[in-house]
Amino acid sequence: MGKVFDYGEVAQHNTRDSCWVILYGTVYDVTSFIDEHPGGANIILKLAGTDATEEYDPIHPPGTLEESLAPEAKLGAVDHSTLPKADKAPAQDASDTEQAPLPDVEDVLNLDEMEEVASKKVSRKAWAYYFSASDDLASKTFNNTVYRQILLRPRVFVDCTRCNTATALLQGRHRVGVPFFVAPAAMARLAHPDGEAGIARACARFGAAQLISNNASQTPEQIVAGAVPGQVFGWQLYVQNDRRKSEAMLARVNALDAVKFVVLTLDAPVPGKREHDEREARKVGAKPPAPSSVQGGGSTSTTTPEPATAAAPSNPDADAQQGRAEPQGAAVGKTLFAGTAADLTWEPTLAWLAEHTSLPIVLKGVQTHEDAYLVACHAPQVAAVVLSNHGGRALDTAPPALHTLLEIRKFCPEVLERVEVWVDGGVRRGTDVVKALALGAKAVGLGRAPLWGLGAGGTKGVERLFEILKAETETCMRLLGVERVDQLGLKHINARAVERDIYDATASTAM
Amino acid sequence: MGKVFDYGEVAQHNTRDSCWVILYGTVYDVTSFIDEHPGGANIILKLAGTDATEEYDPIHPPGTLEESLAPEAKLGAVDHSTLPKADKAPAQDASDTEQAPLPDVEDVLNLDEMEEVASKKVSRKAWAYYFSASDDLASKTFNNTVYRQILLRPRVFVDCTRCNTATALLQGRHRVGVPFFVAPAAMARLAHPDGEAGIARACARFGAAQLISNNASQTPEQIVAGAVPGQVFGWQLYVQNDRRKSEAMLARVNALDAVKFVVLTLDAPVPGKREHDEREARKVGAKPPAPSSVQGGGSTSTTTPEPATAAAPSNPDADAQQGRAEPQGAAVGKTLFAGTAADLTWEPTLAWLAEHTSLPIVLKGVQTHEDAYLVACHAPQVAAVVLSNHGGRALDTAPPALHTLLEIRKFCPEVLERVEVWVDGGVRRGTDVVKALALGAKAVGLGRAPLWGLGAGGTKGVERLFEILKAETETCMRLLGVERVDQLGLKHINARAVERDIYDATASTAM
Amino acid sequence: MGKVFDYGEVAQHNTRDSCWVILYGTVYDVTSFIDEHPGGANIILKLAGTDATEEYDPIHPPGTLEESLAPEAKLGAVDHSTLPKADKAPAQDASDTEQAPLPDVEDVLNLDEMEEVASKKVSRKAWAYYFSASDDLASKTFNNTVYRQILLRPRVFVDCTRCNTATALLQGRHRVGVPFFVAPAAMARLAHPDGEAGIARACARFGAAQLISNNASQTPEQIVAGAVPGQVFGWQLYVQNDRRKSEAMLARVNALDAVKFVVLTLDAPVPGKREHDEREARKVGAKPPAPSSVQGGGSTSTTTPEPATAAAPSNPDADAQQGRAEPQGAAVGKTLFAGTAADLTWEPTLAWLAEHTSLPIVLKGVQTHEDAYLVACHAPQVAAVVLSNHGGRALDTAPPALHTLLEIRKFCPEVLERVEVWVDGGVRRGTDVVKALALGAKAVGLGRAPLWGLGAGGTKGVERLFEILKAETETCMRLLGVERVDQLGLKHINARAVERDIYDATASTAM
Amino acid sequence: MGKVFDYGEVAQHNTRDSCWVILYGTVYDVTSFIDEHPGGANIILKLAGTDATEEYDPIHPPGTLEESLAPEAKLGAVDHSTLPKADKAPAQDASDTEQAPLPDVEDVLNLDEMEEVASKKVSRKAWAYYFSASDDLASKTFNNTVYRQILLRPRVFVDCTRCNTATALLQGRHRVGVPFFVAPAAMARLAHPDGEAGIARACARFGAAQLISNNASQTPEQIVAGAVPGQVFGWQLYVQNDRRKSEAMLARVNALDAVKFVVLTLDAPVPGKREHDEREARKVGAKPPAPSSVQGGGSTSTTTPEPATAAAPSNPDADAQQGRAEPQGAAVGKTLFAGTAADLTWEPTLAWLAEHTSLPIVLKGVQTHEDAYLVACHAPQVAAVVLSNHGGRALDTAPPALHTLLEIRKFCPEVLERVEVWVDGGVRRGTDVVKALALGAKAVGLGRAPLWGLGAGGTKGVERLFEILKAETETCMRLLGVERVDQLGLKHINARAVERDIYDATASTAM
Repeated sequence: MGKVFDYGEVAQHNTRDSCWVILYGTVYDVTSFIDEHPGGANIILKLAGTDATEEYDPIHPPGTLEESLAPEAKLGAVDHSTLPKADKAPAQDASDTEQAPLPDVEDVLNLDEMEEVASKKVSRKAWAYYFSASDDLASKTFNNTVYRQILLRPRVFVDCTRCNTATALLQGRHRVGVPFFVAPAAMARLAHPDGEAGIARACARFGAAQLISNNASQTPEQIVAGAVPGQVFGWQLYVQNDRRKSEAMLARVNALDAVKFVVLTLDAPVPGKREHDEREARKVGAKPPAPSSVQGGGSTSTTTPEPATAAAPSNPDADAQQGRAEPQGAAVGKTLFAGTAADLTWEPTLAWLAEHTSLPIVLKGVQTHEDAYLVACHAPQVAAVVLSNHGGRALDTAPPALHTLLEIRKFCPEVLERVEVWVDGGVRRGTDVVKALALGAKAVGLGRAPLWGLGAGGTKGVERLFEILKAETETCMRLLGVERVDQLGLKHINARAVERDIYDATASTAM
Repeated sequence: MGKVFDYGEVAQHNTRDSCWVILYGTVYDVTSFIDEHPGGANIILKLAGTDATEEYDPIHPPGTLEESLAPEAKLGAVDHSTLPKADKAPAQDASDTEQAPLPDVEDVLNLDEMEEVASKKVSRKAWAYYFSASDDLASKTFNNTVYRQILLRPRVFVDCTRCNTATALLQGRHRVGVPFFVAPAAMARLAHPDGEAGIARACARFGAAQLISNNASQTPEQIVAGAVPGQVFGWQLYVQNDRRKSEAMLARVNALDAVKFVVLTLDAPVPGKREHDEREARKVGAKPPAPSSVQGGGSTSTTTPEPATAAAPSNPDADAQQGRAEPQGAAVGKTLFAGTAADLTWEPTLAWLAEHTSLPIVLKGVQTHEDAYLVACHAPQVAAVVLSNHGGRALDTAPPALHTLLEIRKFCPEVLERVEVWVDGGVRRGTDVVKALALGAKAVGLGRAPLWGLGAGGTKGVERLFEILKAETETCMRLLGVERVDQLGLKHINARAVERDIYDATASTAM
Repeated sequence: MGKVFDYGEVAQHNTRDSCWVILYGTVYDVTSFIDEHPGGANIILKLAGTDATEEYDPIHPPGTLEESLAPEAKLGAVDHSTLPKADKAPAQDASDTEQAPLPDVEDVLNLDEMEEVASKKVSRKAWAYYFSASDDLASKTFNNTVYRQILLRPRVFVDCTRCNTATALLQGRHRVGVPFFVAPAAMARLAHPDGEAGIARACARFGAAQLISNNASQTPEQIVAGAVPGQVFGWQLYVQNDRRKSEAMLARVNALDAVKFVVLTLDAPVPGKREHDEREARKVGAKPPAPSSVQGGGSTSTTTPEPATAAAPSNPDADAQQGRAEPQGAAVGKTLFAGTAADLTWEPTLAWLAEHTSLPIVLKGVQTHEDAYLVACHAPQVAAVVLSNHGGRALDTAPPALHTLLEIRKFCPEVLERVEVWVDGGVRRGTDVVKALALGAKAVGLGRAPLWGLGAGGTKGVERLFEILKAETETCMRLLGVERVDQLGLKHINARAVERDIYDATASTAM
Repeated sequence: MGKVFDYGEVAQHNTRDSCWVILYGTVYDVTSFIDEHPGGANIILKLAGTDATEEYDPIHPPGTLEESLAPEAKLGAVDHSTLPKADKAPAQDASDTEQAPLPDVEDVLNLDEMEEVASKKVSRKAWAYYFSASDDLASKTFNNTVYRQILLRPRVFVDCTRCNTATALLQGRHRVGVPFFVAPAAMARLAHPDGEAGIARACARFGAAQLISNNASQTPEQIVAGAVPGQVFGWQLYVQNDRRKSEAMLARVNALDAVKFVVLTLDAPVPGKREHDEREARKVGAKPPAPSSVQGGGSTSTTTPEPATAAAPSNPDADAQQGRAEPQGAAVGKTLFAGTAADLTWEPTLAWLAEHTSLPIVLKGVQTHEDAYLVACHAPQVAAVVLSNHGGRALDTAPPALHTLLEIRKFCPEVLERVEVWVDGGVRRGTDVVKALALGAKAVGLGRAPLWGLGAGGTKGVERLFEILKAETETCMRLLGVERVDQLGLKHINARAVERDIYDATASTAM
């Protein structure tokens, strides 16, 4: 470790044959690791011969490197005086606008403003990853506007001096202070060094549940380290093709008392097409070193007119196929899906889970009443379902969670009795939270919002976010004449403008 | 009173320990009053050591100070030559636009134009307070657009030489010249020194009823002082936590012959979230002197997962809780709610009212057919109900009054027989007035419009506003072939585009 | 007539006591005429002491002056060299835009482009008068967009080599070459010196019927002077308070062979509120010399809460009342209504008409199925009805003609058998013409379009307009597989998006 | 051929009496050909005396000239040094925008971006021809937005490792790799020299079917020359007035093994009004040398009120009539229709086709369920129907193909069993492809998209386009839990927002 390298020397090792990178001031030889990288070889080759710390740090939990590289790969230190100046610009330039200066995070008034502030503070890459959704953002937009289509029905002459936003999750097992929770969203450290652990501190203060992303930029142990008594965490699982990796993670999670349930995400067995993310990658990306071949063998996607044949039962292949249609850069979203399984089905997956954890299971990503019905059939192992279209990031023009909730009410309302129904997507206001609860949701997930809070002001920004949303929720409950969240019901809303668009199984033949 | 102070000396008394302010050229020591201020301590501390006249004057009725301060608090006069120059800018700068000069108030053609003119004349603070509504202004906007969804049905070959906009309120007891009235809106002197009394003069000329705000910037006695015979006033009551204050006010009002009824406002037991107003306060506001604590005890809002417990049965607590989620500045709207009761219920409140006044009661803020039905059950003590969502200022996405009116027609049309139904919110045109009447409303309230008229040209502006709206109403009646307002009915409108969105109690289970 | 005046001398006679104007180079003393002017005194006083030719000429048929003034009022000639330079600017300045030069009128591609060209050529006053509609232009806009809501249903494998746009009006009595006609619109010479006679020449070429406005800027005799054999004219009647004037006009019209029917306009017994027009008047207008009094006696509009009492049975009063609410300038629209009767009813009016003409009557301005039914009851004296909301110029949010047509189909389809139904308003495309015909209209009126054509290029512009619309109509008919207009029917359109908004008499009580 | 001309000499022969043009460096005397030109005389006269190669080349297949001109018309060569500089600018200037440089074609992310890139590369003329649609582009726009109105219904816990976009056309006879095909669109060489043959190469790589336009800029033989085994082509027929020309073409096509079916286009017996195209022609066009006469004899369009009489049973007349209403320039679209038949009917046309080809017939342009039913009656000669409104280029406000498909499902679902239903128009996303298939379409046509691909990057651009659309289609199928396209059905979509707008035969009489 005594050796000290000039940046110029490192810079020469920028090929597949000899690939060095600088991380946290240390020079590594990663040549042998290139093809093992879960995120693909290209993303490493793009950074070959450079200081990759800024790219690497916010998306890898600490310790990742040590687990992956042999000791002899650590070559020595870099001479800091030889490093080039970094030029990391925020996503939106605040300087050239004539507008007022950014408000302090404690002066932010609502969630839209929080996003606006964060957009001017985080890197372009982080902004693109958080903001992006699939295709034309139709579902992302609809997730929000569907709430605007629902009217509230305030009652008068009701004593509203008391108001309590507390509720309990999973059949009363876990008390929480607010009916909203942090949905699993990847890589919080892209937004702010406080990361997922910072979100956890804000959750502690408000009694909010937090669902830890499978792709968190900190380890589960780090995130729950500061948990207060009674604080509620869930842990999100993307099942890996190499099941042993997932089993090892489950074992780690089982050992954490603060983690109360496992969330299995179902709505993205293959990645959606997030063009903002791809476009950002295209901008910063070098040319892919090896041109991809459309005719590459072994793909599950048959471009010649032949019957489908099974290839490797996993979606790296799918991903490779997908990758061929996309410019190869450093799109954050695409990288995260490397190695996740695309072949999950009901019985085998739940049986396998039962072997490896006794925690209750929450299934996330249900978008039809048919699947909600199937979820209910798997209670009590499955304790809750999250109606979600993945924040509009999986399949564009997929229905918002409220559509699915109304579909359940229309076709199989008994599901609401047999399993707890949570929703996420598009929540911007306390009135949105209340509307979802009035329709029968037990809890309401926040995906991008806590990341914008984090980006705007770290833990303090997330706290302010919760403070706003809780206050808005309380104001709404009081004006509806409701003291406790379990009193909310259909009589508090008018959803006719949405109801007429709900799926009608018989419509196409008898309009 | 012989003592004369330099501004520099006053300016040094700017702390909680020694707090002086200048009002109308007189220096007061308000140190002992800080914690008694109904609007909170912060708003005084922000003005400590300054000439507070501009802030104080338009929102306090004359005499307020004398009632509140001990004589020894009056320290002396200020030397005017030592005062700094004021810089009060209008809300919208007219100078940097290339547009035509502002039209004279008598040349204004419609209510939108009146708002436009007023927006360029009144202070930013007044504009923000008047313009603001809750959250995203969805209800405020919908209040207006719902009128556009309704079509008129003009009849031909009808003699329309005669047209009479006169009607009678409260079961024929009070004749008025026009079917629209001035809804209670606070603090008219923010817009123009003519204030509420100036509006009263305009009302006298057109025979319009005026509902005096509980938070008027002039006293009821001042406002009705110039009333002409037959002029109709109502007085709005926000019940105070300290009931004796309200009882004292009722006694004063009972003594005024011109006040014919009491309006009890129900739709804002806690303040809505008016971000334009908050944002304006944020801009001009100093930092709050004492950081607010989220964990402060005694709140009715339980952030830890505990069952709700009753705290003080009033909404200062609610307000404090709400305040914690908001930046603390001088937002006008928030201040006004200090001390109003949040625990009102049907029987006790109406019984208490019956003890303290024999005037007919008008209940304002009903937004569901269920509550309208309950109102009808309390006739004849309750003589009328105002369907209102508080101009969209209370709960965003609450229904416009026309929705509630159609709901009543759908579920309990007998209410229209048993109690008089008035509406307010969103009226911009004579056709809007006529549509509300055709749907069964007896009178139509104007909230912001008279304030914009006042801001644009004082009493003369309000007169022009009434002149426009009356002429538009007459033109509409004539073209519908209607001579008197009581002839208007459902056959004069086509409301199908609205009707399909009306609440359907059975919809969510059978779509 | 030998006397020649300097402009300076004329300019001194600019008061009510001595009022001179210059018209076509001649100086007139109009002092005694001021109070007799049908358009009101103010409009003359505004022009007192000036050359009024530009204001006077395009809105008065030749001969008007001679009929009204005593010979001694003609004082002499003006010395042209002393006249100030005129500065009449077009409505929209084409010079400061970077756009392409205006296309030649024969290169104009559609009706919107024709309006665009005309808007850059005609005076601001003409543009304001033609463009304006009542209030917020909601009905004017809806008149057009309702056509976009209707889809066409083209048929294939139909021989479409032949196509004939010809049809016959009034129960087959009058053959016309196209199913569209020129609706009565006032004062064509505001747009172009070719005037109504220029439109007539264009109509002759295409076999189009022309309805001559009661307020035409040329006399009926002048307009029909160049008629070709078989050319069809109607003459529009606004019944005057002084019935003898109307009877005299009917006698003149009866004498004209080319005039085949009389059109009685019903939808504007009082003028609508056309703010574009008023605003233009405000811009150019001087201050009214005598302030109008709101409390002026004898008004039919009672502003004090008294029962309605009949005043003079005519609408000058209504107009005066209306005038009080409007700035007094030279708004073209308001002036035209001076003296028209507001007290017309079915039987007396039709009986009076029968006495004074044997021409078939066409009633214009019906907007409900109830009135359409009444029209049918008065066949055969009444031969046709024009469903019209006066181009959106009378009552804003009145229904478009297509709504009324669908209402008739819904409630009393037999009307279509008993009387001919024409429509007008919003037609911009041949597809619009075809849609109206498919719904059952016999002919389709064009209001503003011929005036835009005239403004863009005189007679040549109107011809180009007809050429475009005829060609579009033919293309549409061919692609629907239709050879003759009488083959068009409901099967050629899909109007569901409109049908669900049609008035439902029972809706408000059973939604 | 030895003679060499100066450009100056050629330039003098620019009249109807002596008309020379330069093509590919050769000087031709085309005087005698002027009146025989299928595109009309004007378009030649406009180019008289100039180098017409740029105008001529991309819209005439090679060999066209040789077939049409006598050998003596070839006068000699032009001296290239005397030619003026060309100034052919792209449709949209990319230089004056501050935006990022155009992405490489392999970096393009979606079809909208492909259009954007192409718009900056192709000539104005090409852009106008491809972009244009009839009238106000209402149908073109609706073709796309109707897809946004349909929601997808993703299923979870389904093994989606396999995905196969392959399907078979025409009752299983022809396997294709993707369910989308290239719809017949004219003159690909306007976009790029690779032309239709370049599209064919891209189709070969993806197994996509290609429908060759009747107005292709290359001959069928040239286009299919490089076909791979199994590659599927259809050939589009616009029946000519001179049937022998069509019969000769059919004979040529019958001889080509790669052509598997004949597509008869029905939805444009007369050309629609494409104003973008006309406007472009107006811009570059010289004045028409001979003013057109509206009263020209022999037209089938009777402008005088006479009964229709048959003229020549073909649509040049119609075209001439149409031409009279349009400025005469070089609009590409109008030229292409010269000589196509407007008198086709079911039995005679299909019988005539049966005589001249044994290939299956595909009928394109059906827009009602009535015609779809008639198509089904002509199976099996007719093997498929393409529901199409001609990309919105024929009749504006005609229904999108999805409307017609839902109409068929509503009124005569058995059609889907008896004939294969294809759709085209408005497809921009893989989700659009999947939605059409789920509604029952067997294949989905792409009209403009391949031309934009070609314009953006030649064959490589088309390949990238297919790559994107195939990947999007696969992602959508996987997320719906579908492996093969034949598994897609109504349960995968929610089309309620569209269904309520579908034609209802009984609606207008019972709403």
